[in-house]
Amino acid sequence: MTLSGTLLIGQRDVGGDTHFHAINPATNAHLEPAFACATSADVDTACRLASDAFDPYRAVSFEKRAVFLERIASCLAKNADAIIARAGAETALPEGRLRGEMGRTMGQLRLFATLVRQGEWSQPRIDPALPDRTPMPRADLRQRRIGVGPVAVFGASNFPLAFSVAGGDTVCALAAGCPVICRAHPAHPGTSELVARAIRQAIQDCALHEGVFSLLGGIGHEVGEWLVKHPAIMSVGFTGSYAGGTALAAIAAQRAVPIPVFAEMGSINPVYLCPQALSARTETLAREFVGSLTMGVGQFCTNPGIVIALEGETFEAFVHTAAQDIATRPAMTMLTPDIHAAYDAGAGKLARCPGVTVVGQGTDDGAPNRGRPMLLRTTAADFMRESILRHEVFGPVSLLVSCPDITTLHALSESLEGQLTMTLHMDDGDIDFARMLLPVFERKAGRIVVNAWPTGVEVSPAMVHGGPFPATTDTRTTSVGTASIERFLRPVCYQDLPDILLPPELGRANPLGLTRLVDGRPQAAA
Amino acid sequence: MTLSGTLLIGQRDVGGDTHFHAINPATNAHLEPAFACATSADVDTACRLASDAFDPYRAVSFEKRAVFLERIASCLAKNADAIIARAGAETALPEGRLRGEMGRTMGQLRLFATLVRQGEWSQPRIDPALPDRTPMPRADLRQRRIGVGPVAVFGASNFPLAFSVAGGDTVCALAAGCPVICRAHPAHPGTSELVARAIRQAIQDCALHEGVFSLLGGIGHEVGEWLVKHPAIMSVGFTGSYAGGTALAAIAAQRAVPIPVFAEMGSINPVYLCPQALSARTETLAREFVGSLTMGVGQFCTNPGIVIALEGETFEAFVHTAAQDIATRPAMTMLTPDIHAAYDAGAGKLARCPGVTVVGQGTDDGAPNRGRPMLLRTTAADFMRESILRHEVFGPVSLLVSCPDITTLHALSESLEGQLTMTLHMDDGDIDFARMLLPVFERKAGRIVVNAWPTGVEVSPAMVHGGPFPATTDTRTTSVGTASIERFLRPVCYQDLPDILLPPELGRANPLGLTRLVDGRPQAAA
Repeated sequence: MTLSGTLLIGQRDVGGDTHFHAINPATNAHLEPAFACATSADVDTACRLASDAFDPYRAVSFEKRAVFLERIASCLAKNADAIIARAGAETALPEGRLRGEMGRTMGQLRLFATLVRQGEWSQPRIDPALPDRTPMPRADLRQRRIGVGPVAVFGASNFPLAFSVAGGDTVCALAAGCPVICRAHPAHPGTSELVARAIRQAIQDCALHEGVFSLLGGIGHEVGEWLVKHPAIMSVGFTGSYAGGTALAAIAAQRAVPIPVFAEMGSINPVYLCPQALSARTETLAREFVGSLTMGVGQFCTNPGIVIALEGETFEAFVHTAAQDIATRPAMTMLTPDIHAAYDAGAGKLARCPGVTVVGQGTDDGAPNRGRPMLLRTTAADFMRESILRHEVFGPVSLLVSCPDITTLHALSESLEGQLTMTLHMDDGDIDFARMLLPVFERKAGRIVVNAWPTGVEVSPAMVHGGPFPATTDTRTTSVGTASIERFLRPVCYQDLPDILLPPELGRANPLGLTRLVDGRPQAAA
Repeated sequence: MTLSGTLLIGQRDVGGDTHFHAINPATNAHLEPAFACATSADVDTACRLASDAFDPYRAVSFEKRAVFLERIASCLAKNADAIIARAGAETALPEGRLRGEMGRTMGQLRLFATLVRQGEWSQPRIDPALPDRTPMPRADLRQRRIGVGPVAVFGASNFPLAFSVAGGDTVCALAAGCPVICRAHPAHPGTSELVARAIRQAIQDCALHEGVFSLLGGIGHEVGEWLVKHPAIMSVGFTGSYAGGTALAAIAAQRAVPIPVFAEMGSINPVYLCPQALSARTETLAREFVGSLTMGVGQFCTNPGIVIALEGETFEAFVHTAAQDIATRPAMTMLTPDIHAAYDAGAGKLARCPGVTVVGQGTDDGAPNRGRPMLLRTTAADFMRESILRHEVFGPVSLLVSCPDITTLHALSESLEGQLTMTLHMDDGDIDFARMLLPVFERKAGRIVVNAWPTGVEVSPAMVHGGPFPATTDTRTTSVGTASIERFLRPVCYQDLPDILLPPELGRANPLGLTRLVDGRPQAAA
């Protein structure tokens, strides 16, 4: 596959009047070719196609839908080398990481194919008729979940494969039966085009409606705004900044027909070092922490941005080891010049906060867009005074906070905003300490991690990658794992519909062999 | 129980500086006593109490939570006569209807008690650890759903029991483990107080935290606005007008921490008369229709506000019979003077629309606040030209729309807004006709009804009482039936949490004996 720089609207390549270039963040050099910026007419065309595709696409059998997702995976596999090479040039992410991410992206497609095929994602519920019930008979009621309609997906900068064009949001919208229009992230337009062409090939191979997928590129906010405002769009998946996510949510809420925006906006992912664990494993924890903090230049939504512990000698030893370790870590190229500039500004702002001191920094070779690891410390009192310390700075910076006593540590925890993750490092002797914190963690976080680091998100049925605002715009959801499909589903109830008109998941003979909720109880197929 | 006219904040009776009276809509007479209007300080007190109650209440076992819901039902039963008498005076609803509604309210409490006890509402998911997986081991991941936090519930005028203080929203929030603050509907403050006292008694009997429930009264929008703006409130349940629901949603979206508003705002509930069915059962359908339209003075969210069919002789016969029937139906007292005034104005506005003619009206004795049944007709062309005809008028008015051909009927269907229900009257010969409409119905409605009338909402696992905007503010939910609990739940994932700290629904020994999703497949208890 070669890059055309065009928009991909259904099966058509569409050029543009204005163009932009990707930038190699390792050199600040422009990359060829030029990429077209979508116009509002392009957005309209793609949205109308998606709207046309909705009924035929959702009518496709679960089996065919599963085959389609698997076909995307195999089209990606065929072009993996080209995609990874381009992604490396556009993001400065190392090849090994990108190969791993490609594996995760294909694994995700196959996981959702399995989910779609199994069929219980449609949540069939059946209340059989009770014709003899008094005083009133009960009708036959059957409920299933169907896709909400065309979904706008915004690619994320930090996962150019697993959370971009064919990433988590796209996959679960397609699995739900929703056409997708992807707004390509301007930091990796070439990667986006190559991946979009793989999806388009799979659509052709599976003889699906061309409107099932389109890719729209551009710079600035306009394309995204047009998309979210378009009446055909029924839902939005977004991974990115707080400013971006809340801006889209505000636009969506003001539509004539408001729609939900599922924005995952990151968090500071507090890590707690319980007294026994800290004492038993001081140095190991310090080194593991710096490893987690600096991995991928700290460019993860689940990066450990704050570490909380009781003050004292063991905590000082932890700080000392972490400071020594971080001093050996080199600055690495960040994803984009903008992200690098925001990191430098944000980390600097934290470092200049009253009561905050710098305890260690990585090495820096002065090359373009290097994110230099930084470790800061402060006290609970200062942390609670300075609200700015509660906000995420995207990159390899973390704040160590010491608390004089358990009461203060608890109060500090209550003062935190919503988080994707909260982590406990604990030993058997820390059970009471953990038990005290657990209700707070449950209220504040989507995932509670024990004796591991938050950077590492499994794509599986039980995963939650979500959490209370401002971690996400909708705390009732996850954007990773099979439960993420629920974001793009809505229930429909059929009352006394003749069997011949019922969808197979609700058919009286249970032709798909599903476990269904019958009279409120799970019932496996006979 | 006697009425005090106070607010009920936890276990305290709180008086007010300003007061209002309920009105008997049958006479326009004031009813004693005077009821206190909540101040912003009262709202704050109730919200803080609810916040304090959240952790202890959600920690209560499923069994104790179920007993609590059952206890509310028995406290209501003990005071049913007094509650029904007061509700009759405040709403003009007949005693038989109110007794039925009381039965439904208690049935709903017991249904949710059963749901809570069964435990699968918490949606346990378990991905067991895979320590030997390569290249990376998998941690033990366990997901459950927990309550979102304190919920503000707005009582509905038209179901003073089943969708008010101890109604659907309250019950499913309590079932989810969420404290509730109910904003009493000003049309039935006495009924609200009596029901709230029953809930309070149940809280005492079950030794729960007093903050689990409070009742706040008042007139105007202020109390509701203070509630929805309060940082302790995490979600909102509302049944009422489009203006009210969208106003609350706008307030909630503008909070520092935005929260969801689940507003059910009614719809026009289109009913389709398929050619064969209309021809075979013309007169029966006409009489059933008028019965459904005039039942409860048309004061149902699922009232059939529009009937659609192909033009021709059978349709004219249907119109003729319906017109004759409605002429025999008396005007009846509506719920409030305001609702009556809005009905008169709204029905008049429809009747004066270009292309609309009045085909029949009920009798009217001129007593106060009588809603006089009215039947209108128009053509598909006029309907599609006048957007006002698409909006609900709350009360016993309906519009018969004739279509010259199937293409027009289909286009008209596509032009409709989101609906709670869409109904098909069909015979075996209408299967193709139905099949053509079904995809549209699925996109537009929460419930698809065949050969029945939409007025009649079962409280059961498969029911959907929801639908695309403007029927509700969140199409992904239902406000009736056990699936409504999902509105007030959010997922939390526990990674490698020691068994001793796991909640029982996720415990390794499965102590509650739940069917859980293990590695993505439903697995019954061993």
